[in-house]
Amino acid sequence: MMAKSANEDQLFIGIDGGGTKCRATIYSVQHGVLGTGLGGPANPLHGLERTLESIMVSTQLAMRDAGLPLENIHQIYAGLGLAGVNLPSLYEKISEWEHPFKQMFLTTDLHTACIGAHDGGDGAVIITGTGSCGFSYVQGQSVNYGGHGFALGDKGSGAWMGLEAIKAALVDLDGLGPKTLLTATIKEYFNTENAMGIAEQMAGQPSSSYAKLARYVFDAANQKDEVALSIVIEGAAYVSQLAHRLLENNPPRLSMIGGLAEPLNQWLDPVIAKLVEAPIQPPEMGAIYFAQQSVLEQNQKVAL
Amino acid sequence: MMAKSANEDQLFIGIDGGGTKCRATIYSVQHGVLGTGLGGPANPLHGLERTLESIMVSTQLAMRDAGLPLENIHQIYAGLGLAGVNLPSLYEKISEWEHPFKQMFLTTDLHTACIGAHDGGDGAVIITGTGSCGFSYVQGQSVNYGGHGFALGDKGSGAWMGLEAIKAALVDLDGLGPKTLLTATIKEYFNTENAMGIAEQMAGQPSSSYAKLARYVFDAANQKDEVALSIVIEGAAYVSQLAHRLLENNPPRLSMIGGLAEPLNQWLDPVIAKLVEAPIQPPEMGAIYFAQQSVLEQNQKVAL
Repeated sequence: MMAKSANEDQLFIGIDGGGTKCRATIYSVQHGVLGTGLGGPANPLHGLERTLESIMVSTQLAMRDAGLPLENIHQIYAGLGLAGVNLPSLYEKISEWEHPFKQMFLTTDLHTACIGAHDGGDGAVIITGTGSCGFSYVQGQSVNYGGHGFALGDKGSGAWMGLEAIKAALVDLDGLGPKTLLTATIKEYFNTENAMGIAEQMAGQPSSSYAKLARYVFDAANQKDEVALSIVIEGAAYVSQLAHRLLENNPPRLSMIGGLAEPLNQWLDPVIAKLVEAPIQPPEMGAIYFAQQSVLEQNQKVAL
Repeated sequence: MMAKSANEDQLFIGIDGGGTKCRATIYSVQHGVLGTGLGGPANPLHGLERTLESIMVSTQLAMRDAGLPLENIHQIYAGLGLAGVNLPSLYEKISEWEHPFKQMFLTTDLHTACIGAHDGGDGAVIITGTGSCGFSYVQGQSVNYGGHGFALGDKGSGAWMGLEAIKAALVDLDGLGPKTLLTATIKEYFNTENAMGIAEQMAGQPSSSYAKLARYVFDAANQKDEVALSIVIEGAAYVSQLAHRLLENNPPRLSMIGGLAEPLNQWLDPVIAKLVEAPIQPPEMGAIYFAQQSVLEQNQKVAL
């Protein structure tokens, strides 16, 4: 379903930026994928400078991987799917960036993930990584739920699980809540014996620092720790609800993407767990399709 | 129980700094309270510069109120009770401040609140304002619980209630949670119709911005809104637990301080609600006692 641009040897770069990392893939209409690059966090909600830097790092690494000289960047059409740009002010800030590409087409990471997951076709996706959110694109209509950012929203995400784990450990350490295996794990993780040592290390930390603790919550839940079980069950229930909400739009396919998609699966509503299909292409390819489609529409407008 | 310093006309300033405001009171051993001043937020966890600025603003206003020339600041002993300095790194940073006072004695806002509430005697206090925490001082032993900062801890506080209210409104707006009166209130408060407009305005906001919403949660709970009721009940249950934990140390008195002390009272465990006694003196007076006591101990050491 790859759209064809007027110029057959046109180069595209697809960029997928999230709270933890930024992936870039360079694609030639004639030769397919030429190279890939990986950069740091690229969620403008947590820093615009850092986001632009991560985009440039992943782009330069992808160009090097593709054997392309850096000055060719001006000939590449870029498709960017970024977390955070569902907030209009951030969308605007990134749009105003004096980027080095031939042209830049910006949308949310949800949109490009959805395009990639269903190979350009209609469908719905749930992203559960550092954050969580749901998106569907059916017959030209897109809707999204969740994705309001840490710690307001993003229930069921890695950051949410990490935050709930720390909250539980702190009340346990104060003797104000149930005992949990998470307390020992978290004390070891932060190399401290007391609650204040944990609070101090987490003060002002971004969501990605919380998300690193999510795997310990699954570990403890698998050991039948009551507190960890209730966190995982509550998070999974929200993600299942999100899936049911998306299904109201009758998407032909539903995929789950992100670091928590696999560990969460066994905790989901079985109806949803069974429905979930693997994404066909990664979000970076979705970003490439998005750029191709945008160029095509532009050319059609010019032709009219 | 006011301790007497060697020099009878000695001046003291007591400063109580929290997440929302900073209060200062100037006290003369001979003439009692001379003046008071009010400054902005002074929780170093949310900004060291801002904290020092708020301390200086409240000090200068108190001096002006007392009719003292500003250069007299060098003759005043200062007692500082600050939120956040239970974190050792923040205690150290404030201690290193090149303050303008004759001498500065630093402790937590909990400690000075406790000294004030019990007029210098033993006792326990729970602070529920922007944040929440518990402290007891009995026979030379102090313990504290909670106070780990927003959003890791501070359950039952104004900021916690505000955050829970926004979370509830966002899931309601997404059709992913129960309907609540809070949704209409919060949409009106932020002057927006959609979830993203709320999330955007709260992105990166300090705990004090969340605490402003607490009163709407009480309003909705009093109107029997299920979601608001469950927030208030959960918060009050935590505060009651905190009180029971403090009572294990057998404090002769227990007081509750802060903007939520009064509205929370009717929701507390009745045993606790009945036990709570009004604070005898405000935290600023506790900070003055603390400075006086510190000067006295210092003089005793010199005399030995």
